[in-house]
Amino acid sequence: MRTIQVKSGSAGYSVFVGRGLLSTLSRRLVNVRGKGPRGVFVLTSPEIWSLWADAFLESFPHQDPPSILFLQPGEEHKRLRTVERLAEQLAEARADRSSLLIAFGGGIVGDVGGFLAAIFMRGIDYVQVPTTLLAQVDSSVGGKTGVNLQAGKNLVGCFHHPLAVFADTELLQTLPSRELRAGLFESVKAGIIRHPKLFGYMERNAGAILARDPKAIEYVVSASIQMKAEVVGIDELENGLRMILNYGHTLGHAIEAATRYRKLLHGEAVAWGMIAATRLGLARQTVTRAQADRIEKLIFEYGPLPSLRLPVDRLLDAATRDKKNRSGVRRVILPSGIGNAVVVEDVTDAELHDVAESMLRTARESSATTDSVKE
Amino acid sequence: MRTIQVKSGSAGYSVFVGRGLLSTLSRRLVNVRGKGPRGVFVLTSPEIWSLWADAFLESFPHQDPPSILFLQPGEEHKRLRTVERLAEQLAEARADRSSLLIAFGGGIVGDVGGFLAAIFMRGIDYVQVPTTLLAQVDSSVGGKTGVNLQAGKNLVGCFHHPLAVFADTELLQTLPSRELRAGLFESVKAGIIRHPKLFGYMERNAGAILARDPKAIEYVVSASIQMKAEVVGIDELENGLRMILNYGHTLGHAIEAATRYRKLLHGEAVAWGMIAATRLGLARQTVTRAQADRIEKLIFEYGPLPSLRLPVDRLLDAATRDKKNRSGVRRVILPSGIGNAVVVEDVTDAELHDVAESMLRTARESSATTDSVKE
Repeated sequence: MRTIQVKSGSAGYSVFVGRGLLSTLSRRLVNVRGKGPRGVFVLTSPEIWSLWADAFLESFPHQDPPSILFLQPGEEHKRLRTVERLAEQLAEARADRSSLLIAFGGGIVGDVGGFLAAIFMRGIDYVQVPTTLLAQVDSSVGGKTGVNLQAGKNLVGCFHHPLAVFADTELLQTLPSRELRAGLFESVKAGIIRHPKLFGYMERNAGAILARDPKAIEYVVSASIQMKAEVVGIDELENGLRMILNYGHTLGHAIEAATRYRKLLHGEAVAWGMIAATRLGLARQTVTRAQADRIEKLIFEYGPLPSLRLPVDRLLDAATRDKKNRSGVRRVILPSGIGNAVVVEDVTDAELHDVAESMLRTARESSATTDSVKE
Repeated sequence: MRTIQVKSGSAGYSVFVGRGLLSTLSRRLVNVRGKGPRGVFVLTSPEIWSLWADAFLESFPHQDPPSILFLQPGEEHKRLRTVERLAEQLAEARADRSSLLIAFGGGIVGDVGGFLAAIFMRGIDYVQVPTTLLAQVDSSVGGKTGVNLQAGKNLVGCFHHPLAVFADTELLQTLPSRELRAGLFESVKAGIIRHPKLFGYMERNAGAILARDPKAIEYVVSASIQMKAEVVGIDELENGLRMILNYGHTLGHAIEAATRYRKLLHGEAVAWGMIAATRLGLARQTVTRAQADRIEKLIFEYGPLPSLRLPVDRLLDAATRDKKNRSGVRRVILPSGIGNAVVVEDVTDAELHDVAESMLRTARESSATTDSVKE
């Protein structure tokens, strides 16, 4: 097991990464809470619960199990009305300010659960037990919680840090391989923007990682979290450094929006976005040709990436409507060598058009289709 | 004009109390925001807006007025679905993280507006411009924001401090007199639990205060806010001292719940609750007979209090279902002399029954009816 300390202005907590955390959870909660397992509520999805309920409940007292709340899967349930229904259920079950909520699931369960904990009785404690690779390396660290509006994703929410995060890598053994690979793109991102050692490791060990070798997975997950923890520790409220985490997201978000979040997984869209941003870096000479090639090669190593047929104008249109660009400033994150990134604010429409077109050409010719990568 | 500094662990801001703040608001906002009047959104009620729009808009640039969002009056609109609708409107109007929300209205506008600001894009700046006495002396200070669930009032929300509070006492000139008096009970409470000077002032100047003499009102409002600011500064998250602010609330909330929030205004219910708590203080000898008499006399000075016909069992039943007593501990705040209060946790059912019955006897015989005090 590895432990990563997350420090930020308003909170500090530990992320535990390793195998077997789930079946020993109750005892570990006593350590972080400083008290026994009473008043524990679990938010999870029916699918996760049907797979893991036995392991989850193993360490809890059989006569006094935690109360289980369910969130149906799918982005359409990541809304305020879901949060309201869950809050009513908590109140009904007599949760109070001393209760603990465990968010046990993927990114949506984490975002909704964290937000529910942030606003129920003006804030109760919660812990994250992320079950997907993406949730383990990304959304469980940073304190961002929230739900969608019709007007856009994650437009309402809070910064609310968990008491602790338990990333049990054993849970990744049952993850569909497309989801595993989509999550690994976040680790690839971590390597590119700030962690040259992780970058090199992922170059050399793609076989072991994709075969879910426990040691390899544990290293990749903990190194990715370490990178994010450092960045968030330096810039909790996203005023500076944290922006580099958006590498690949300018066009990644635009791809998701233009395809209505239906064709690509988030990580896959970000992967195409990283390729575009890298080509912009090459044009701007923040990376050499050799470095750009290494980056693209690493991304495709964790593919296949689904092919994309999208008119460039539709993509650019979606990019300008992105909430992060509302102030009128378009910030693009470029790789700077391997293991470093820079934020540029002066990217012209023409430049963006060029790299979007170049990326879309590659994406059209990709051999993988969304069907072929579906599990 | 008087200025009160509110300091708390996570924030510091000023409460300005005086006449004419509304018509100079835009210039004052520049001072607290450090920038011009762009990106300003106002949440208000149609009623308030029809009375005060001209004064409000006077100091804003005519070519670039703030955007106005409306909240219909009534507790039934203090819900998450209202917050969602308002958030969609903000997004539609292109509000972003640098926008400012002004909550311009009574307590409900303040609670909903503060919560909207707390969660829109994970938190934007807001200021309070409270228009009722109750909102000026109570809900605008302390950072509590939130909305109701079916399961109970204020069960979801955030602690989110405003950038500043502008309590324009001129707005109180149009307040119905029953609402004025209901708000004054919060000032009476402030005097009893922590501000002997305010207590004495309200004893000697009831005539001037009820006649809305500007100087008298300004003193009462600022002294009440000063008291609350001190308490909240010492105990932001309601773990200790802040509990004394609940003086009168154990039975006050129960009266509101048992009458379904329809008969009495909040301040009136708290006034009856203060009378019961004072009688318990007398029984427990935390106040002398003379002190208890002075307290009751002051409360009735700001009456008339509506009569109440309520079986004692129904009241006590509502008291046990109150969310603040969920943990099983019943905390009651007793006056301790004049200008001080104590929290007791060992009040027996029999003791509570006795004082509730004694208070209800007085309340049944009160000459005022809810009809007679209606404006």
